[in-house]
Amino acid sequence: MSKDLPHVVIVGGGFGGLEAARALRNARVRITLVDKRNHHLFQPLLYQVATAGLAASDIAAPIRKILAEQENVTVLLDRAVAIDKKRKVLVLSNEELPYDFLILATGVTNDYFGNDSWEAHAPGLKSLEEALDIRRRVLLAFEAAEKEDDEAIRRRWLTFVVIGGGATGVEMAGALSEIARRTMAADFRNFNPRDARVVLLEGGPRLLPAFPPELSEQTRHDLQEIGVEVQLNARAQRIDEQGVLTANEMIEARNVLWAAGVRGVPLANSLGVPQDRAGRIWIRPDLTVEGAPGVFVIGDAAAFPVEGGILPGVAQVAIQQGRHAARNILAQLARKPLRPFSYQDRGSMATIGRNRAIAVSAGLQMTGFLAWIAWVFIHILYLVDFRNRLAVLFEWSWAYFSYNRSARIILERSAPRVELPPHPPEGARKEPA
Amino acid sequence: MSKDLPHVVIVGGGFGGLEAARALRNARVRITLVDKRNHHLFQPLLYQVATAGLAASDIAAPIRKILAEQENVTVLLDRAVAIDKKRKVLVLSNEELPYDFLILATGVTNDYFGNDSWEAHAPGLKSLEEALDIRRRVLLAFEAAEKEDDEAIRRRWLTFVVIGGGATGVEMAGALSEIARRTMAADFRNFNPRDARVVLLEGGPRLLPAFPPELSEQTRHDLQEIGVEVQLNARAQRIDEQGVLTANEMIEARNVLWAAGVRGVPLANSLGVPQDRAGRIWIRPDLTVEGAPGVFVIGDAAAFPVEGGILPGVAQVAIQQGRHAARNILAQLARKPLRPFSYQDRGSMATIGRNRAIAVSAGLQMTGFLAWIAWVFIHILYLVDFRNRLAVLFEWSWAYFSYNRSARIILERSAPRVELPPHPPEGARKEPA
Repeated sequence: MSKDLPHVVIVGGGFGGLEAARALRNARVRITLVDKRNHHLFQPLLYQVATAGLAASDIAAPIRKILAEQENVTVLLDRAVAIDKKRKVLVLSNEELPYDFLILATGVTNDYFGNDSWEAHAPGLKSLEEALDIRRRVLLAFEAAEKEDDEAIRRRWLTFVVIGGGATGVEMAGALSEIARRTMAADFRNFNPRDARVVLLEGGPRLLPAFPPELSEQTRHDLQEIGVEVQLNARAQRIDEQGVLTANEMIEARNVLWAAGVRGVPLANSLGVPQDRAGRIWIRPDLTVEGAPGVFVIGDAAAFPVEGGILPGVAQVAIQQGRHAARNILAQLARKPLRPFSYQDRGSMATIGRNRAIAVSAGLQMTGFLAWIAWVFIHILYLVDFRNRLAVLFEWSWAYFSYNRSARIILERSAPRVELPPHPPEGARKEPA
Repeated sequence: MSKDLPHVVIVGGGFGGLEAARALRNARVRITLVDKRNHHLFQPLLYQVATAGLAASDIAAPIRKILAEQENVTVLLDRAVAIDKKRKVLVLSNEELPYDFLILATGVTNDYFGNDSWEAHAPGLKSLEEALDIRRRVLLAFEAAEKEDDEAIRRRWLTFVVIGGGATGVEMAGALSEIARRTMAADFRNFNPRDARVVLLEGGPRLLPAFPPELSEQTRHDLQEIGVEVQLNARAQRIDEQGVLTANEMIEARNVLWAAGVRGVPLANSLGVPQDRAGRIWIRPDLTVEGAPGVFVIGDAAAFPVEGGILPGVAQVAIQQGRHAARNILAQLARKPLRPFSYQDRGSMATIGRNRAIAVSAGLQMTGFLAWIAWVFIHILYLVDFRNRLAVLFEWSWAYFSYNRSARIILERSAPRVELPPHPPEGARKEPA
């Protein structure tokens, strides 16, 4: 491939970054896609890995493999450290990458609203590593309860608090309750897993605030029916090894999960352009950035103003913006005007548990079994890699009929033993892709 | 369950320990099975996890789930620290477990023959964590090669040395060669994965010394045909970050894997009874131990003398001994004489790669495609958990027709962040179950 072709650098191999790369497959450009991980992650199903329903590799596929046939793409496993917008250079851990166009698709990370000490007690759910960490904690909590004779301490092991009533929080709480009431039901001798307490805390007045109020109410009802204790207008005031303190109660719990907030990754700061309160980059209607020529920002990393706020951080926005950024790059190369982005909302959905979900599309609302079936099929259809579709379909069919969860495997954290090739250091786990 | 019933304690939920527990399902005893991991591991397929062919949860199943329906068993996730044979007590990390009968089924760990510094450079393959560590190293090596411009350094990243020509070493070498020549073939831009060098070092005069010489020779031939460089009578004299030094050559390699030796776990030492050179416990024909009343040792942890040496460390021996130990416990409870164990050899097999394996059973030898098909089906049949059978069959069918490997996911080692419930500390990874 000629070195003279315009160089498009994409940071991040999530939904947006991958779609941008694919949309440029026939373009006369060189593309370099940089990600600090080797895999694309199907984030909407991450909670299933955390709750032992799916294996890590079921919802992830090597970015390199996905793009193997697209000859104008080079995939680099590396960490983007900074952007020098004057020199038009992306700084990686060991080298610099000059760009003509830069597409930032770096996503977001967990945000503890300034209470960084909470992170140790309430892990978030953004990466496969975090999902496996949560899985280990949850499974080990049941094991610890089996060995504990002190009733009060055992109760604390068996209390799960999920903070944040958005889609991730609702799905986690529902899955945890099913694990305790179904999957684990017969497996312990010294306690009844059905006695586990699962609490979902939401700071606002209703769950799933992005959905219509009737569906929020249906979700609360469904969650309570499967044993989840939903507390609305309840904020965590303190989180520590004892549990969670709210205005009403000290909830003694050894298992606290964070699904309450996200923020843009630090790489965005190095661009030196306006960001919203959560560190997302304000973008113009054509997805470019004021004062940073050649730079596009898409997906969760971007703040795209719409009536009443910004576009939500969902896969559909990232995918459509990735495609649009690619088109605007082609327009600019052809010296045509860039076009403004407009979002086509195809609807949204959340699952609550076996046979229960909610969905809204084109003003139409669905609940219950029908919504759940729709959820299952749409998620399988969107799984990037063909093989993964079949594998997940298989796991789910099995789980549905057996009530079992196939990935109930506790992996120890392996001890670092030897220097590996240049890759993101431990401390950088939350940094840009 | 009455506390008055005789208490059988089993250490280890591998093939032997599980079989012993199951064989006692109708007995009037209380059983406690202790393992430091929550899962039974199908060790013969561990190399498939290491080479990204299967997910960790495909070859593992929760011990607790396997035994959930057997009401006379309690499963404990804990580490056995020592045995007090005088008081008939097993010491765990936080408590003591008095026993009437103790079945040690603790398996073996890697042995570096006194060269402990080699371990950091040449990981072994005994646990899921080690398999995932090897997978990460192998996949990262290809990633590092893609970023490297210096030809000599790139060659080092693309050189894989497997030490030990037993079944594990043969299977690892064959799989690595297939990854480079098939799976990865189209995925890189700056080098050709087919140029990767895979070397298998065997200290003795032939591969698979437990098999008939013709099959050893066939294996060598097959491995060479799929691109593995086999070196016989070649011992590692030094292993460090540069690679492996043998009498003939300094093999510059960043990827060295250890499949050359095993030894009994430290728990065995606390019994204070005779052990063989590799730390295995010498057992009597009835599987009991001289000077340790009530103690049985089975599987890889035991040295059972037969003509020409001891019984091999394979699943079949462990399973049959587990069953036999259970029978002898019942005999002793009924005040009948204990019976000597005799091994029924059903044959053995090893796979070399796609369509290639060797097998020997009842004097009959098989090679090539037929042996491979037999290998595939026998391994699927023996997978403990029914679901796993289907999942593995699916993964393999997919891999066979697509040449793809589904688990090409690099997981970072997650940073320890918070105190988890009592479970084996990092340093104890190689200690008794």
